[in-house]
Amino acid sequence: MPIIECVPNISEGTRPEVVSRIAGALSTVAGLRVLDVQSDATHNRSVLTLAGDAAAMRRGIPVLFEEALSAIDLRHHRGEHPRMGAVDVVPFIPIAGVTMAECVALAKDVAADVAQRLELPMYLYEEASANPARKNLEDIRRGEFEGLAAKMMQPGWTPDYGPHAPHPSAGATVIGARMPLIAYNINLATDRLDVAKKIATAIRMSSGGLRFVKAMGIALEDRRVVQVSMNLTNFEKTPIYRVFDLVKREAARYGVAVLESEVVGLIPQAALVHAAEYYLQLEGFASRQVLENRLREE
Amino acid sequence: MPIIECVPNISEGTRPEVVSRIAGALSTVAGLRVLDVQSDATHNRSVLTLAGDAAAMRRGIPVLFEEALSAIDLRHHRGEHPRMGAVDVVPFIPIAGVTMAECVALAKDVAADVAQRLELPMYLYEEASANPARKNLEDIRRGEFEGLAAKMMQPGWTPDYGPHAPHPSAGATVIGARMPLIAYNINLATDRLDVAKKIATAIRMSSGGLRFVKAMGIALEDRRVVQVSMNLTNFEKTPIYRVFDLVKREAARYGVAVLESEVVGLIPQAALVHAAEYYLQLEGFASRQVLENRLREE
Repeated sequence: MPIIECVPNISEGTRPEVVSRIAGALSTVAGLRVLDVQSDATHNRSVLTLAGDAAAMRRGIPVLFEEALSAIDLRHHRGEHPRMGAVDVVPFIPIAGVTMAECVALAKDVAADVAQRLELPMYLYEEASANPARKNLEDIRRGEFEGLAAKMMQPGWTPDYGPHAPHPSAGATVIGARMPLIAYNINLATDRLDVAKKIATAIRMSSGGLRFVKAMGIALEDRRVVQVSMNLTNFEKTPIYRVFDLVKREAARYGVAVLESEVVGLIPQAALVHAAEYYLQLEGFASRQVLENRLREE
Repeated sequence: MPIIECVPNISEGTRPEVVSRIAGALSTVAGLRVLDVQSDATHNRSVLTLAGDAAAMRRGIPVLFEEALSAIDLRHHRGEHPRMGAVDVVPFIPIAGVTMAECVALAKDVAADVAQRLELPMYLYEEASANPARKNLEDIRRGEFEGLAAKMMQPGWTPDYGPHAPHPSAGATVIGARMPLIAYNINLATDRLDVAKKIATAIRMSSGGLRFVKAMGIALEDRRVVQVSMNLTNFEKTPIYRVFDLVKREAARYGVAVLESEVVGLIPQAALVHAAEYYLQLEGFASRQVLENRLREE
């Protein structure tokens, strides 16, 4: 049974009753599971974690849009987090038994369907976008809801689906497919913040490091140690073990040892299996050899 | 949903129709899944791999015994593999959401039930046996079917359940609970068989090495390399990464590098996750953080 994860971000984090009603509506959709709901009042934003196959997503995501658009009006929305739509971002993430290409196709189908039903402009992003200028969420969302009408009139900002003007209360949505994110931190056996910052600079893509690493150096004041805090945005192309070994190597250059690492939240089984394969020099290993995978298969 | 694996070994490997009938009967048992059936004609023995919860095992294993006893007569059985019973060995193995203690309780329940129904002597082994002289399969089975009547009259060999004499055609069965076995091999970048043999001697329990390792050195003639071929009998107490690092270390003492390692057949997810945790120095990691486990949970 294929598993796709979907992590919609909606622009509502102060009215729990609204978020509950949306989550409740989703939980009645056949084959769709609501794994998690996190609301942040300061951001005035909620993040839902859904799982199911493509058919369940095709049934469920339009329900999400209908419920959200009936309850959220961005003309009266204030919050610290940037946003452009009532349903702001909808990423589909391949987890098991499904390819990235299938998630891209799903994103396009759902975008076309919702755009037509609700007269909502939709922008494709990440793997679903063929346009390099429209791959990054931040680039598409720049200007936010308030700047959207003007932005949509500029060359290059015609939406992929739906009307060529913002929805009056719901703005526009960014939808697409991406790899699962891994939040991964490495703690160093030192209180020297400059070392953590230098290592972060060395390993992150934006300053010359590994392609799918975002990193910053921070101090863990209470523990008197520092941390290289990271997001790994494609664990298949930039594997966790390569990040770990490189941070360890860079730290050694300053005479600093790695204290420990930590995964925050969820991590795909494959990311850990790849690490075991790497360090154990495992040849010819197939994920079917993981007993639990075999048991689920049949 | 708890998962127990059961790997019964039956003394029939030359009549496929008999093995198919037994597997077929098991596959009709509610909640029981027949994952694999392997027959060996030279050994005249078949190994079935079953999965299910305790209730499914309580329903299914008596069916296995009834079918096997109606078709197999050890008085006419010849084969290279040692055997004492028509159903020779029945291990229950905790895989997920179930403890070893629960598997021990299951083994005792099933043993008592089958012994009474079929008048078959049953010996508990491995974790299900409290008697150190009756933990190892080889010790219990020594003398085989042909020596069983005499052995059962000796002090210390009264069965745990059932009559104090062999079943005329089915002998006796060894039943119990154990950890999953991992078949794990490490190939060395050399054709020196003496190096593989010395390393096997160094790391296996029987000659002073790690408690839950069985090992031998063999030559892979076609590849002109040698292999340390191992069974890891308790991956929680003797983890795979410790075995790998120790073999690598011992090989270095002879100036030999590790070429690669391989897992033959199935391996529990936890064994690989433990390796990733070890090498990545992962602190505070919980198996719930594996995305797939979380998806299965709810």
